[in-house]
Amino acid sequence: MDKSKIKVSVIGATGYTGAELVKILLRHPQVKIDVITSKSFANKKISEVYPWLTTDLVCQELNINKVVSSSSFIFAALPHQASMKIVGEFYLKKKKIVDLSADFRLTDPLIYEKWYGVPHQKKELLKKAVYGLPELYREEISKARLVANPGCYPTSAILALAPLLDNDLVKENSIIIDAKTGVTGAGRRLSLATHFPEVNENIRAYQVQGHRHAPEMEQELSKLAKKKITITFVPHLVPLNRGILSSCYAALKHLISTEDVLKLYEEFYKGEPFVEILPRGEFPQTKEVVNSNRCRIGITVDKRTKRVIIISAIDNLSKGASAQAVQNMNIMCGFKETMGLN
Amino acid sequence: MDKSKIKVSVIGATGYTGAELVKILLRHPQVKIDVITSKSFANKKISEVYPWLTTDLVCQELNINKVVSSSSFIFAALPHQASMKIVGEFYLKKKKIVDLSADFRLTDPLIYEKWYGVPHQKKELLKKAVYGLPELYREEISKARLVANPGCYPTSAILALAPLLDNDLVKENSIIIDAKTGVTGAGRRLSLATHFPEVNENIRAYQVQGHRHAPEMEQELSKLAKKKITITFVPHLVPLNRGILSSCYAALKHLISTEDVLKLYEEFYKGEPFVEILPRGEFPQTKEVVNSNRCRIGITVDKRTKRVIIISAIDNLSKGASAQAVQNMNIMCGFKETMGLN
Amino acid sequence: MDKSKIKVSVIGATGYTGAELVKILLRHPQVKIDVITSKSFANKKISEVYPWLTTDLVCQELNINKVVSSSSFIFAALPHQASMKIVGEFYLKKKKIVDLSADFRLTDPLIYEKWYGVPHQKKELLKKAVYGLPELYREEISKARLVANPGCYPTSAILALAPLLDNDLVKENSIIIDAKTGVTGAGRRLSLATHFPEVNENIRAYQVQGHRHAPEMEQELSKLAKKKITITFVPHLVPLNRGILSSCYAALKHLISTEDVLKLYEEFYKGEPFVEILPRGEFPQTKEVVNSNRCRIGITVDKRTKRVIIISAIDNLSKGASAQAVQNMNIMCGFKETMGLN
Amino acid sequence: MDKSKIKVSVIGATGYTGAELVKILLRHPQVKIDVITSKSFANKKISEVYPWLTTDLVCQELNINKVVSSSSFIFAALPHQASMKIVGEFYLKKKKIVDLSADFRLTDPLIYEKWYGVPHQKKELLKKAVYGLPELYREEISKARLVANPGCYPTSAILALAPLLDNDLVKENSIIIDAKTGVTGAGRRLSLATHFPEVNENIRAYQVQGHRHAPEMEQELSKLAKKKITITFVPHLVPLNRGILSSCYAALKHLISTEDVLKLYEEFYKGEPFVEILPRGEFPQTKEVVNSNRCRIGITVDKRTKRVIIISAIDNLSKGASAQAVQNMNIMCGFKETMGLN
Repeated sequence: MDKSKIKVSVIGATGYTGAELVKILLRHPQVKIDVITSKSFANKKISEVYPWLTTDLVCQELNINKVVSSSSFIFAALPHQASMKIVGEFYLKKKKIVDLSADFRLTDPLIYEKWYGVPHQKKELLKKAVYGLPELYREEISKARLVANPGCYPTSAILALAPLLDNDLVKENSIIIDAKTGVTGAGRRLSLATHFPEVNENIRAYQVQGHRHAPEMEQELSKLAKKKITITFVPHLVPLNRGILSSCYAALKHLISTEDVLKLYEEFYKGEPFVEILPRGEFPQTKEVVNSNRCRIGITVDKRTKRVIIISAIDNLSKGASAQAVQNMNIMCGFKETMGLN
Repeated sequence: MDKSKIKVSVIGATGYTGAELVKILLRHPQVKIDVITSKSFANKKISEVYPWLTTDLVCQELNINKVVSSSSFIFAALPHQASMKIVGEFYLKKKKIVDLSADFRLTDPLIYEKWYGVPHQKKELLKKAVYGLPELYREEISKARLVANPGCYPTSAILALAPLLDNDLVKENSIIIDAKTGVTGAGRRLSLATHFPEVNENIRAYQVQGHRHAPEMEQELSKLAKKKITITFVPHLVPLNRGILSSCYAALKHLISTEDVLKLYEEFYKGEPFVEILPRGEFPQTKEVVNSNRCRIGITVDKRTKRVIIISAIDNLSKGASAQAVQNMNIMCGFKETMGLN
Repeated sequence: MDKSKIKVSVIGATGYTGAELVKILLRHPQVKIDVITSKSFANKKISEVYPWLTTDLVCQELNINKVVSSSSFIFAALPHQASMKIVGEFYLKKKKIVDLSADFRLTDPLIYEKWYGVPHQKKELLKKAVYGLPELYREEISKARLVANPGCYPTSAILALAPLLDNDLVKENSIIIDAKTGVTGAGRRLSLATHFPEVNENIRAYQVQGHRHAPEMEQELSKLAKKKITITFVPHLVPLNRGILSSCYAALKHLISTEDVLKLYEEFYKGEPFVEILPRGEFPQTKEVVNSNRCRIGITVDKRTKRVIIISAIDNLSKGASAQAVQNMNIMCGFKETMGLN
Repeated sequence: MDKSKIKVSVIGATGYTGAELVKILLRHPQVKIDVITSKSFANKKISEVYPWLTTDLVCQELNINKVVSSSSFIFAALPHQASMKIVGEFYLKKKKIVDLSADFRLTDPLIYEKWYGVPHQKKELLKKAVYGLPELYREEISKARLVANPGCYPTSAILALAPLLDNDLVKENSIIIDAKTGVTGAGRRLSLATHFPEVNENIRAYQVQGHRHAPEMEQELSKLAKKKITITFVPHLVPLNRGILSSCYAALKHLISTEDVLKLYEEFYKGEPFVEILPRGEFPQTKEVVNSNRCRIGITVDKRTKRVIIISAIDNLSKGASAQAVQNMNIMCGFKETMGLN
C-alpha cells in the first residue's frame, strides 16, 4: 500500500449514501478503504448488494475497536439518533469523522430534540462539530475533527441564498424555498410513499407543515444574516432517482438589477470549485449535476414584484451527501479539495 | 339519433387536448360528435392516431361551411393565433363555441399582443368572450356564445387563490405560484425540451422570467381582489405525463388560523361539484385527479411567517383543458354540469 | 335502489386489483356495491386510501355472514391461499363468485401445491371452478357459480397463442413467451424489488427459472392443443405502472403466410368485443390498452426461420384482472358482456 | 502537454454517443482531445450543450485537413452513410479510426445496401475494417487502422451467444433475441416515437419484421458457428434513458446442465476485463452496468424444453457504443485495455 494513503472506514455502507461514499472513495487516490459495516448485509460482499461497486470489500458488523485500531478517518452514514453514540466513541478515540446524519448539525440541542423527537445524548460534542458546508466554513473544517455533513435540502438552499443574506439584500422572513427531490433522498427503507406505483406518474408536496431540514436552514441563514431568519420550506417528491431543484424566492429590500445580483454571487463564490453561477437568463436542470459534486445556480430579479428568484440544482446523493462528505475529508486531511471528485 | 342530442364538432382533434375532448364527448349522453378536423391526419380515422379512441370517426380537413351546416356547438382546440380567425367565423354563424386556445382569455388586446407577440385580429369579440372558469363565472357562461377555456396553470392557481383574494386576506403582490407540470402540457409538437432522454430523470424550471399564463392569472386575481394584483409565477417541468401541482404562497394581512382559512374555502366552494378542500393537514397529489375534472386543494397557515400555503392538484388535460371545456359546454347548453364528467 | 340491480361485495378491496374492481363496479349500471372489506383499512372510507374513488363506501372487516345475508355476487381479491377458504364458504352459501387469486385456476391440485408451496384445502371445488377466460369458456362461465379469474400474464399469452394451438400450427414445445410488465402487477405490498429507486431506470428479468404463471399457461394451451404443451416463459419488470406486453415466438409446422395467420386469428376472435387483431405490419403498444378491457394483438411470420411472432398488449389491472372479472360477472349474470367496460 | 499523450478528434461530438465519448476521453490519462466537430453547434462550447462536460472545448465545423494535421486518432460518431466518405478520407491520410456508425460493420456490401437502402461508396475499405468486439477480435483490432464499432444490440447479443456457437451447442436457426432498450439508443434526433408522453408509461416492440442490427448479429454468429446462422431479433422500447437487456433463447442440441454451460462461458470469457458471468440462479439488471463498459450475463437451462436462456445487460451508450470505442482505441494504441474505463 502507498504509504501516503489514509485508511478510511464507512459505517453504514449499504444505504444509498453509504454506497455512494464507497463508490467515490474507491477512486480516491489518497484513500484506502479499510472497514465497511452494515447490519443488514454483514459478511456479504458489498458488490452483491450493489453490483456496480467493483470491489471485493466485505461488509462487517460494526466493531468499534477494530475500526479504531486501523482507520484514521471515519464516515458515519447511519440514521440520526443511531449515529450520535457511535460518532461519540470515534471522537473519543481521536479519530477524524464526517457524520452524514443530522445528529451534529443543529448547535442547539433543544431544537434538535424538538424536531427529531429524541433527546440528544452527546451535547458536549455539539460545540466541537463544524457544519460541513465548505463554501461557508472551509477554514473551520480544515481544523475540525468532527464535521456534520449538511442535509441535502439545506445544501441546495443555503448555497442558493447565502450571498443575499451575507449582503443584507432581502427582507427578513420573506424567504420561501420550494424544493423538488428525487426519491433516493428518502433512502432505501421501504415505505408506501416510495413504492414505485405510488411515486411514478405523481407529484406531491410532503411535510408541508414542517420538515426537519427547515431549522437547519434557518440556523445557517441566520448566522449569515446576523439576525434570526425564519423561512417557509416546502419539499416535493417527484418521480426520478437523483437530483434536487430548489426554487427560492425572497423580497428585495431595495430594487437591484439581475446583473448586480449576479455579480454579487460571482464575487461570493469566486474560486469555488463546485459552485457555478449561470449567465443571465439561464437556469439549471438537475440532470446537469447528477453524479457530480456541483451546485449550479440561476438568478433573476422580477422588477414588478421586487422579488429575487434563485434556482439551484444539486445531486442529493453527491453534493447533497456523499461527495460533499469527501470534499470535507479532503479539507480535513489537507488533500486537494477536488481530489476524487472530478 | 336521439333527437335531444346536440351535434358537436372538434376543430384540431389530434392534438392531446383535442383527442381528450373526443374521448370525453364519445361517452357524453347528450352529444353526437359531428365533424372532427385535423391538418396532419386528414382522411385518417382518429383511432389510427389514438387507438384507445374506440370510434370510426375520420378526421377531415377543416371546411367551415360544412361544420356550420350541421353542428350547433364547436370546440376549437387549435394553437393560439390560428384559433382567433376560425372562432370568429363560427361566432358570426351564430354557433356556440368553446375556444381552448389563449386567444380570447385576455380581455386587453395590448396585453395579448405583448405576451403572444402577434396582433389580435378579433378584438371586437374579446368583449363577447367569457372566461370559462365555472367556479367564478357560471352565470355568465350559461348565457355566453363564446367561452375562452382557461389555461391549465391558471385553472390550478386561480382556484387555489380565489377565496383569499375574494376575502381580501393577503397582501398585494405577495403571491408566489410555484407550479409543476407533466409533459403533455407542452403538447404533441416535437422539441428537444420534450425529447424523452432530456425530460426523464430531470427537473427544470422554464420561462422563469415570464410565462404567458402569468397575465391570465393576474387578470383574474385582480378582478377578484378588485385591485391590481401582480404575482410571481414559475413553472417547472417534471417527468410524468399528466398532472399539475401548484404550490402557492401568500402573506396574510392579519394572522388567521388554518381552520378559519379552511372554512372560508369550504364556504367559497360550497356545492361545487369539482373542487375539494382537503381536511387540515392533508395535501393533494396529482395522481388523485388524473383522468378527472377535479381540483383538490390543501391549505396550511405558517404562523411563524404569517404566510398561507395552498397546494392544488389538477389534471392538465382534464380540468386544465378538455374536461373543463365540456363542463363549460354543459353549462352553455343547459345540461347537468357534471354530465359525461364522472 | 333500482330493483334490477344486483348487490355485489368485494373482499379485499384495498389492493390494486380490489380498488380497480370498485372503480369499475361504481359505474356499472346493474350493480350496487354492497360490502367492501379490507384488513388494513377497516372502518376507513376507501376514498381515503384511493381518493380517485368518489364514493362514501367504508371498508369493513370481513364478516362472511353479513356478506352472504345481503350480497348475491362476490369478488374475492385476496392473496392465494387466503382466498380458498373464504371462497369455499361463499360457495357453500350458494353465492356466485369470481375469485381473482390463483387458488382455483389450476385443475390439478398437485401442480398447485408444487408451484404455490401450500396444500390445497378445497380440492372438491376445483371441479366446480371454470377458468374465466371468456374468449375460450364463455358457455361454461355463463353456467358457473365459481369462476377462477386468470392471471395477468396467462391472459395476455393465452389470447396471443390460442388460435395457433387450436389450429395445430406450431411445433410442440417450441413456444417462448417473453413478457414485460408494469409494476402494479406486483401488487401493493412493499418489497425492495418494487422500491422506486430500484425499479426506475432499470430493466430486469425475474423468476427466470420458473414463474407460477407458467403452469397456468401450459394447462390452457395444452387443452387447446389437445396434447401436453411445455413452454418457456420469462417475465420482465419495466419502469411503468400498468401494462403487459407479451412477445410470443413459436416454430411453425409448415410455412404459412402472415396473411393466412391473420385470417385464422380474425376468424378465431370473430365477434369478440375485447380482442383486436391488428392489420399486417402493425403491433400493439401498452398505452393503447391502459384503463380498458382490450387485448390488442399483432402478428408476423418470419419466413427465414419459419417462426411466427405474436405480440399482445393488455392492461394487467384491467383485462389482466379486474375488468376481466367484471366481464365474467356480466356473463354469469346474463348482463350484456361489455356492460360497464366501455 | 504530456509527450506520451495522443491527440484525438471526435467527429460528431454533440450526439449522445459523441458526447459520451468526450466524457470518457476527458478523463483518459493518455489522451488529449484535439478537435471536436458538430454541424448543429459549431462555434459553441460543448459544455453549453452538455453542461456536465466540464471542459472549454469548442465545437468546430468539420475541416478534414485541420483534423489530420494535428490528430493521430479519430472517432467518427456520425450517422450511417454520412460516415463512410469522411472515414475514407481519414483512412487515406494514414490515421487510426474507430467508426461508430454502421458503415463498416457488414463485410458484404450487398447486405449493407439491402438493409440501409443506400449504395456503399467505400467498398474497398470493407476488407480493411475490423469488427470492434474485443472479446472476439482483440488480435485483429490491435493491428487495425480502421475499426467498425459494433451496434448496441449486436454487442449485447453476440456476447450473450458467442460461447454457445463457438462450442456448437445449439440448433441452427433456433436463436431468438428479445431485446429491450432505453431511449438514448434512438439518438438525439426528434421523432414522435421518442416524444416524452409517447414513450413514458408505454412498452412497445418496433421493427418486428426486421431491424438493421439483425444482419450484423447473423454475420458474427455465423462466423463463430462456421455456418450460416439465421436469428429472430425483436427490439423493444422501454421508458428509461440507458441500458439494454437482451433475453436470448436457443434450443440445445443435447441437454447439458446449467453448471456446464456456466463453465463454458467462464472459460470462454476468462480474463476478459468487462464480461461477467453471474453465478447460477442470478440474472443481470441494466442498472448494474449503467455508466460502465461492463456486460453482465446470467444463464439457465430449461430442462423441460431443452432450451438455454441467456440474459445479458449492457449500457447502450457505454459498452454498446462509446466506452467500447475507447476500449478499441486502447487496444489499437497499445494502452492498457481498461485505461479510462474504470
